[in-house]
Amino acid sequence: MSSATATVSPDPTVVRRPIRRVFVANRGEIAVRIVRTCRDLGIETVVAVSTADRDSLAARLADRAICIGPPAAGSSYLHGPSLLAAALGTGCDAVHPGYGFLSENPGFAAAVVAEGLTFVGPRPEAVAGAGDKAEARELARSAGIPVLEGSPILDGPDAAVAAARAVGFPVLLKASAGGGGRGMSVVEDEAGLRARWPAATEEARAAFGDGRLFVERYIRHARHVEVQVLGDRHGTVIHLGERDCSLQRRHQKVVEESPASGLPEEIRSRLHRDGVAFARALGLDSAGTVEFIYDVDRGDHAFLEFNARIQVEHPVTEMVTGVDLVAAQLRSAAGEPLDLAQADVVPRGHAIEVRITTEDPARDFAPRPGTVGVWDPPSGTGIRVDSHCEPGYVVPPYYDSLLAKIIAHGPDRDTAADRLVAALRELRVEGVPTTAAFARSTLDHPDFRSAAVTTTWIAERGLADFLETT
Amino acid sequence: MSSATATVSPDPTVVRRPIRRVFVANRGEIAVRIVRTCRDLGIETVVAVSTADRDSLAARLADRAICIGPPAAGSSYLHGPSLLAAALGTGCDAVHPGYGFLSENPGFAAAVVAEGLTFVGPRPEAVAGAGDKAEARELARSAGIPVLEGSPILDGPDAAVAAARAVGFPVLLKASAGGGGRGMSVVEDEAGLRARWPAATEEARAAFGDGRLFVERYIRHARHVEVQVLGDRHGTVIHLGERDCSLQRRHQKVVEESPASGLPEEIRSRLHRDGVAFARALGLDSAGTVEFIYDVDRGDHAFLEFNARIQVEHPVTEMVTGVDLVAAQLRSAAGEPLDLAQADVVPRGHAIEVRITTEDPARDFAPRPGTVGVWDPPSGTGIRVDSHCEPGYVVPPYYDSLLAKIIAHGPDRDTAADRLVAALRELRVEGVPTTAAFARSTLDHPDFRSAAVTTTWIAERGLADFLETT
Repeated sequence: MSSATATVSPDPTVVRRPIRRVFVANRGEIAVRIVRTCRDLGIETVVAVSTADRDSLAARLADRAICIGPPAAGSSYLHGPSLLAAALGTGCDAVHPGYGFLSENPGFAAAVVAEGLTFVGPRPEAVAGAGDKAEARELARSAGIPVLEGSPILDGPDAAVAAARAVGFPVLLKASAGGGGRGMSVVEDEAGLRARWPAATEEARAAFGDGRLFVERYIRHARHVEVQVLGDRHGTVIHLGERDCSLQRRHQKVVEESPASGLPEEIRSRLHRDGVAFARALGLDSAGTVEFIYDVDRGDHAFLEFNARIQVEHPVTEMVTGVDLVAAQLRSAAGEPLDLAQADVVPRGHAIEVRITTEDPARDFAPRPGTVGVWDPPSGTGIRVDSHCEPGYVVPPYYDSLLAKIIAHGPDRDTAADRLVAALRELRVEGVPTTAAFARSTLDHPDFRSAAVTTTWIAERGLADFLETT
Repeated sequence: MSSATATVSPDPTVVRRPIRRVFVANRGEIAVRIVRTCRDLGIETVVAVSTADRDSLAARLADRAICIGPPAAGSSYLHGPSLLAAALGTGCDAVHPGYGFLSENPGFAAAVVAEGLTFVGPRPEAVAGAGDKAEARELARSAGIPVLEGSPILDGPDAAVAAARAVGFPVLLKASAGGGGRGMSVVEDEAGLRARWPAATEEARAAFGDGRLFVERYIRHARHVEVQVLGDRHGTVIHLGERDCSLQRRHQKVVEESPASGLPEEIRSRLHRDGVAFARALGLDSAGTVEFIYDVDRGDHAFLEFNARIQVEHPVTEMVTGVDLVAAQLRSAAGEPLDLAQADVVPRGHAIEVRITTEDPARDFAPRPGTVGVWDPPSGTGIRVDSHCEPGYVVPPYYDSLLAKIIAHGPDRDTAADRLVAALRELRVEGVPTTAAFARSTLDHPDFRSAAVTTTWIAERGLADFLETT
């Protein structure tokens, strides 16, 4: 992927602002990930740490760590003013928000820019436009992209029932500000919808600070397929292929892969085209992900939502395309043109990722903080591990329970899956329970091997199927 | 790299013998490496262990481990009869010799085949032909490949002096059965040659069981460039590009990379062509490496030797080409045609490997066995670690001191080098000294960055240059 082959014409009016010191407004594996790429690029890093993360791997790898508050996320990683003050006080010229926390908060992005710093992500207006689900759907519709039948924001249970009848039960009741599979529930009928409404509003308000809800057609046999897009401030937008994240447990992704298997080629091309069309309509000038739902029974796809940030599952795309997405984000944020054109993106092989969390599958996946005694990650041909874990790591109870992402690449899907299964067998973690054996049993399942997995597959089979082998 | 794109026509007369259980006649990281790929392919493994390696990672990962003797290599990993008996006794149908030990011993390969087992490597005759340096040079010459001026096998110091005068001093005095940089010394003049002869004979006999010597032109500014070749029993031979292994300390490779940097494109193509020509002349039906020396001052190349086995540095080729070389060896050994044609080999980016050994740079790189307390390898984007180490690993004093290979891949050479430097900073090993900081300082050196390194670079600069920063 040499820059000589890119055919992008830079816009001479775009202001280039070199990034010399990045403030990492996040924690865990993504903070480590960002620090590593900054270091590769010769960019200094200051990592924000709550008092619970003072001794973190990210803190050690960064040039500097600065405490931004007590453990509770609301007082640290979700507290914009503390983060901004720390970024300014440490002389940073850019802020990378990672994923989760404030990464898709348009107010935070705007505040970063207002302080004269570079936000490593899309323009604040694009973050805002994409973050509002209803607005994003409108944008997709106007760009000629199929959108799942759904309602606008609803002002109460009566409006919800009317909207659900128009769409047809069952429906998905979703938080407008939700994301990452959080803030949605399947509702089977009118009574269920009325019963669920108050709690859903309250939960959305608690989780996202925004209690607005809408309903959407619910697809029984759905696959979650998303397109990685990449833009710069010179008007270039390309895609880096798609990822399939259908293997989920309670709307949480368990396994992600690229490319998607068993998808008609016509649909695949259409997804790529629609992904780029959405990004262009949004004026995307950074990395983003256009999420689609693929209706297995009908054989068609529809726009779901847009994520204006790096995704947890980005490494599968990196392994298949050879592109460093965090480096691309930094490049675009600095006003540089992308160093690759669509024709330079030549996928190779297949990559699969599993998320290893410190949850106890035997206890309904209850998060289990604790101290990691032994941490012996797998390695070898085609294996990549993204983690902030190290021997002696204390898993704090305050944040999500992601311990590591293990990614396997191979010339084809079966080889990648076999390598990943083997890597999961090699992984040794002592001191906390993990989901490694659970993930392994899904990868070994004939349904997964024949790419017959839909988003409700685990729920339909029941967890027992996957816990027996753990 | 899909098999659909390969254009190989299988020879129907070739007998295919599926491999179901591989005997791994080696130890350390390469035993782990082989076990992992066998497992990916659904092939069972039995790993040979000396009493010193009973608790090794390879033993744990394999389906079974079998003790083949006491720690001393002569009574275990170098003792063919014990290995063969163990392979037969455990119902294996193939033997993978790894590198070093008996991997290039034609007698061992022949004995394996004579017992009805499959040798995972070239036919014994090819192993024999390649292993004899003088014979290999003749073969190269007859294939139209430039060969370094040198003598045949010499029968004593007088013949050596005459041969050296013909070639021109200084000359390299080399053991015919040597390899891996072992068994050679630079001799500046006649007196030096006569003085060195007896010890060189004795050392060659002790190391290789064969005291025969010859002399060769010594190139002052040489780069070591080697071509990875791959053949099958159906007559196909392809190359997987070249590796540069010029960064050496006392003829031992320290850093290896692919592709070679700063090489005229004409020379690069010529190397690939000559590499394939040699492999064809030899009738190569497995993986092998054709080593060349590139004379920086004259701008020309010459054949050095052929290695009929997997190389320590093979991962850089794997990361650039996406081809699993051990899988290819197994495929060819089973009589299957290669599943890729030359046109399928599309290199991507740049990969660099460093060898981390348990040697003490501050004490002239004396090997230092001991117990590894902390073992915390690096990971992340573009990083691969091949190692048999784990926390608590006891480095035995009986074998070579290689602890791990750390390989970094990136879109270009500088990115790969930066990632590798960063990975080496992340590596934490406690309990034994390592060469990590030494390797890092070579990678950070301006001469390395400008690809100006020749095989004598470290010796010319002096070690102090690299130890200051450790």
